[in-house]
Amino acid sequence: MPAYITRREAFSASHRLFNPHWSDERNAEVFGPCANPSGHGHNYALEITLTGEVDAETGYLFDLKELSAIAHKTILDDVDHRHLNQDVAWLQGINPTAENLARVFFERLEGCFPDGLLHSVGVIETDKNRAEHRRD
Amino acid sequence: MPAYITRREAFSASHRLFNPHWSDERNAEVFGPCANPSGHGHNYALEITLTGEVDAETGYLFDLKELSAIAHKTILDDVDHRHLNQDVAWLQGINPTAENLARVFFERLEGCFPDGLLHSVGVIETDKNRAEHRRD
Amino acid sequence: MPAYITRREAFSASHRLFNPHWSDERNAEVFGPCANPSGHGHNYALEITLTGEVDAETGYLFDLKELSAIAHKTILDDVDHRHLNQDVAWLQGINPTAENLARVFFERLEGCFPDGLLHSVGVIETDKNRAEHRRD
Amino acid sequence: MPAYITRREAFSASHRLFNPHWSDERNAEVFGPCANPSGHGHNYALEITLTGEVDAETGYLFDLKELSAIAHKTILDDVDHRHLNQDVAWLQGINPTAENLARVFFERLEGCFPDGLLHSVGVIETDKNRAEHRRD
Amino acid sequence: MPAYITRREAFSASHRLFNPHWSDERNAEVFGPCANPSGHGHNYALEITLTGEVDAETGYLFDLKELSAIAHKTILDDVDHRHLNQDVAWLQGINPTAENLARVFFERLEGCFPDGLLHSVGVIETDKNRAEHRRD
Amino acid sequence: MPAYITRREAFSASHRLFNPHWSDERNAEVFGPCANPSGHGHNYALEITLTGEVDAETGYLFDLKELSAIAHKTILDDVDHRHLNQDVAWLQGINPTAENLARVFFERLEGCFPDGLLHSVGVIETDKNRAEHRRD
Repeated sequence: MPAYITRREAFSASHRLFNPHWSDERNAEVFGPCANPSGHGHNYALEITLTGEVDAETGYLFDLKELSAIAHKTILDDVDHRHLNQDVAWLQGINPTAENLARVFFERLEGCFPDGLLHSVGVIETDKNRAEHRRD
Repeated sequence: MPAYITRREAFSASHRLFNPHWSDERNAEVFGPCANPSGHGHNYALEITLTGEVDAETGYLFDLKELSAIAHKTILDDVDHRHLNQDVAWLQGINPTAENLARVFFERLEGCFPDGLLHSVGVIETDKNRAEHRRD
Repeated sequence: MPAYITRREAFSASHRLFNPHWSDERNAEVFGPCANPSGHGHNYALEITLTGEVDAETGYLFDLKELSAIAHKTILDDVDHRHLNQDVAWLQGINPTAENLARVFFERLEGCFPDGLLHSVGVIETDKNRAEHRRD
Repeated sequence: MPAYITRREAFSASHRLFNPHWSDERNAEVFGPCANPSGHGHNYALEITLTGEVDAETGYLFDLKELSAIAHKTILDDVDHRHLNQDVAWLQGINPTAENLARVFFERLEGCFPDGLLHSVGVIETDKNRAEHRRD
Repeated sequence: MPAYITRREAFSASHRLFNPHWSDERNAEVFGPCANPSGHGHNYALEITLTGEVDAETGYLFDLKELSAIAHKTILDDVDHRHLNQDVAWLQGINPTAENLARVFFERLEGCFPDGLLHSVGVIETDKNRAEHRRD
Repeated sequence: MPAYITRREAFSASHRLFNPHWSDERNAEVFGPCANPSGHGHNYALEITLTGEVDAETGYLFDLKELSAIAHKTILDDVDHRHLNQDVAWLQGINPTAENLARVFFERLEGCFPDGLLHSVGVIETDKNRAEHRRD
């Protein structure tokens, strides 16, 4: 039976939901207050789940300290205390919904692990809203 | 790979666990303090998870504002600040355990979404107790 | 300088906000959905804070295990999994708002401790609503 | 003995810590990543505490539904899903630190209540950081 | 469709991550501060999830009071307020990582339930770190 | 009116409640499972509250980044992932109850700030137990 481990990290960022191919009216209609031109922000949580076998010598599926370091280097150092639409090179042209963030974070993280180790990436925007990109 | 989004909503309600085909003694024996005749209550959380493809134009799997509105219209407007055994027409005859609530809420919500979009409904009674009805 | 210790306990109960000297219309107008005749419920938290000197031999201001036992005997055993308006003898005739609960709980607890030891009693109804009765 | 009630509300906003009389270097030195020109954001919590006597007829110190309505009208409608430096008329010229927000929110709320009723206003930026403006 | 229920329990324990076949240097290198010889501790949470059909008479998948009693008898009575490396007979020779704890707890619990009822066991070490042993 | 700011930090440690002048029986009687010889552990939270005037130029009562750095240097670097009875020089001879930890942490922090700035130090052992040392 496979094991799972999850690391949760926090970052604070601002974003704006916006489709540049649409009029301002259409953006306001679809995204409501999330389309506010100067943006708004969240204390995001990022949850990274790995799955696989537990190493008999260490009792680790993966070292959570190392997982945290990978999360910082690959994602958090670029997005914490930033504006997701404006400050992050690898988010250019992407509407930073929770769904899109979860997918892009997953794709960036995937190359950091052996095949199949990365199981899912969750992006929690608020106590009420969460998105997840998961390999099923 | 499919995406998942989850909306969490809160409601405060009272309930009593009770099987009308049983004696009071049998109810007290099986349900313990939960069978108290005048009921007791909880701050419930309701978690609704949808799964599917993310729309390329909006970056949304489903608009969480709309999901919240559906949850209110279909469930929360009827159960918040109510007695689940006495005040809710569509819960008549159902013992309001967390398991049964999760199933009935799932069935009510299912018709509000395209086929297969509704993935799971969780009902959290307390920090310790949670039930989930999930399409696997 | 005085020290403070706080013990937090949980209980699940139902209640109805209601003034029997008023018409049903007036109750509904003032208390809104909280006046629903069959009641509603909460996962309450009770926070009891003591203040005083720390005993040099134990390093305790007061034994928190004993404080928990007092809370159970004096309050929790009577209110947990109960209807506060109907099932609790010592709440008869009291409208169970968070403010009133905090005061009555304080008064019941006061006699359990040496003079001045009981500092405050907090009653948390939901993540949003809290009342406190405090000796200042 | 006075009672206290607290209402907690949430809002999501972005901000930038910045003193316009300073060079960019000085701002970066003092405020670190919080001085990022395009801002960053938080899920803020606002805690409003009132103190006074409990009304014998209602059992309320103050109606929490009304307190919530006042919070929305006076503060939340203006700051939720906004950029605090750019979008809020009554925050113009104020560096939106948690300390300053707590003070300005307190001043705006003070006129909404009878003398002495407003006890404190807390602004929670993250799980780690909180400021409070309190009448002692 | 199967239902799921989850019971969450808490325990406080100390542990040390350590492989006795390694040198102290190797242990310190791999486990960092978690290899501190006198140990350190956590407020652990244990989450037990069962899956199966809901009983038509009770509305229960499984009685959560009974599930809690099983968790106490099988696990919590032995590990709460203990040193996991030194005080627990059935953890002797096992490096108490979250992954290993989740597996051993799963194995101990498995025999307490009819075939297939036990779905997963989660061990939460801190707000950031979680492991899960799950039947897929 | 003075302002208050609070910084919350986490650390994981083990401890044992024990009075060396007492017999083992007396220790077991007073401290119960907390007297377990090999200790047990917690995810502690440390809350440091400062009070004073807000600086007009920065909008800060005190830089929370600097407050965090002081907390790490003065306390957290010594206690995180340690056994409080055995590994911390400045806790030798002190029974590590939450009350005593709050007082010792307060005394260590006091010298790091101008007179009167340090208002209180809270030590949270579990969701249920908290101690505070406060200048009134």
